[in-house]
Amino acid sequence: MTEKPILLTLGEPSGIGPDCTLLAWHSAPELFAGVCICAPPSWLRSRAALLGLDVSVREVGRPLASSGVLHCWNPGVGDGNDVVAGRPQPSTAPAVIACIEAAARACMQGTAAAIVTGPIEKAVLRDAGFIFPGHTEFLAHIAGVDAVVMMLASRKLRVALLTTHLALKDVAAELRGMDVRRSIRITDRGLKRFFALAHPCLALCALNPHGGERGHFGREEMEVLAPAVADARKEGIRVQGPLAADTLFAAGHRDAFDAIVCCYHDQALIPIKALDFGETVNVTLGLPFVRTSVDHGTALARAGSGKVSYSSLIEALKLAASMSREDANANK
Amino acid sequence: MTEKPILLTLGEPSGIGPDCTLLAWHSAPELFAGVCICAPPSWLRSRAALLGLDVSVREVGRPLASSGVLHCWNPGVGDGNDVVAGRPQPSTAPAVIACIEAAARACMQGTAAAIVTGPIEKAVLRDAGFIFPGHTEFLAHIAGVDAVVMMLASRKLRVALLTTHLALKDVAAELRGMDVRRSIRITDRGLKRFFALAHPCLALCALNPHGGERGHFGREEMEVLAPAVADARKEGIRVQGPLAADTLFAAGHRDAFDAIVCCYHDQALIPIKALDFGETVNVTLGLPFVRTSVDHGTALARAGSGKVSYSSLIEALKLAASMSREDANANK
Repeated sequence: MTEKPILLTLGEPSGIGPDCTLLAWHSAPELFAGVCICAPPSWLRSRAALLGLDVSVREVGRPLASSGVLHCWNPGVGDGNDVVAGRPQPSTAPAVIACIEAAARACMQGTAAAIVTGPIEKAVLRDAGFIFPGHTEFLAHIAGVDAVVMMLASRKLRVALLTTHLALKDVAAELRGMDVRRSIRITDRGLKRFFALAHPCLALCALNPHGGERGHFGREEMEVLAPAVADARKEGIRVQGPLAADTLFAAGHRDAFDAIVCCYHDQALIPIKALDFGETVNVTLGLPFVRTSVDHGTALARAGSGKVSYSSLIEALKLAASMSREDANANK
Repeated sequence: MTEKPILLTLGEPSGIGPDCTLLAWHSAPELFAGVCICAPPSWLRSRAALLGLDVSVREVGRPLASSGVLHCWNPGVGDGNDVVAGRPQPSTAPAVIACIEAAARACMQGTAAAIVTGPIEKAVLRDAGFIFPGHTEFLAHIAGVDAVVMMLASRKLRVALLTTHLALKDVAAELRGMDVRRSIRITDRGLKRFFALAHPCLALCALNPHGGERGHFGREEMEVLAPAVADARKEGIRVQGPLAADTLFAAGHRDAFDAIVCCYHDQALIPIKALDFGETVNVTLGLPFVRTSVDHGTALARAGSGKVSYSSLIEALKLAASMSREDANANK
């Protein structure tokens, strides 16, 4: 029996998703031994020609791990010949969306082990009727789950986000309206299931400077975060906090935790990118399958130039493989 | 003519201010060649006895740089015999406040070159009628200036703060009500006057994730920050922004700037402490004199234990000396 492949979606085909894939394959083909690309083969072939790379792409009729040549599964989204490097076309948007959906459904049907996603161009998808803020929410919708947690992982740090893309002034109200304990629980379970951590140790980051100094500037620590920690601990989850954000990410402090649960986007992304830029992987926890993603955007201006870093893609592929192995072991 | 000394205040005498001073002197007495302590000598002598350190403290009648022995100028605040290590006393609060004020006035009168402050215990001072959120505001009040900028400096990064100790939910409204351009200007002038930077290059950090994505989540970038940058550039200040916070602090990005102006406390303190914890110095810009400070608190539980790091104090003393030299050069 062959092992199930990891499906890699390229995201916006006029962006650097194809470039990163081709360059990563070229420099480390062994990384793709368990990987199948989910896209029309032309998205890779035309970019390979532009980059002057000699890459053999074989079209396969179902998700099938690459071996020797790069396997490409086209889930019936057309020939993909309308792609122009660096210039997103409205006509390609339905294929971009359909590839992501097909990859997710393959994971759910058990014909693929995980999905790794390349960067999408949200404005183009929005114009084509895509109503989701991003991949994460779209995948949650396909999977029929109503709560997922965005986590970023690097060698030095893992950060999980309570809130993601909203104005900073709205974060406090959003925290008050959400189920913080559920996000802590999803993070805890995700680390157990996919990261081989039997008893993960979590920290919850405070929202306000110095943790609000006992209500002097902000009461969310007392009224929202501390109760959520207390509730989570009653469930047996090892979590501390809320802890003041400024010292929590310092060397010698952050190392005590398997993941730090953060209140807002930049609280999580500033430290992880300051410490490990380019080697950070985006992970979605709470889905019924493994999903990782690169941490960069479409970088349209560099598509076709060959001047791109594919280190984040390599890390995303490695992490998806490791998470899938752990998941399979846990299910044995 | 003797050089003017740098005055070091110990902050809360039951905290680790005296410990750090004694240990730093013990390990690197040459650093104190231009330094005079502003405190009752007993605050140092009693802690030295507790720590079993053989330190000679000489009382001097006016600010006078140490040479061979540690000079201590008591600005008439009593004998200081009411200090108990680890246990703040209300009775010592007036002396703590008076030492800071005396040191600042000495700088303004030209009998001292700079002030370096140890950590205070705010709750104790508040109970004694101290109405200021911290040192910075107290020093601004003494100096009669209505706008100062808190900056943190380490080897890798300098960050300046638009807002400091307030609830996160109130940051956006505070930014809308304040003069952002003035803070950029104070930062620019401070770097020119004290850091030997003829043409400092600044970045202004965005408030919202991804800089708000053109108003999708948050409009402060368009309505407050971008106009402030435009106005500052009209004055000839080299400043870019607003730039998305998550990538701005990454290696290869942050290095392009002499300082990054941040919207709120944790946006500035998370990255600098993640990168350089323990070697970060707090600097107040906009005062008519040089002021630096350690970046840690009173750590009451460790007072008298000998188990403290004095690296931040050493960096604060070095930076105050360097800033004073640059200031003197600029005035020649």
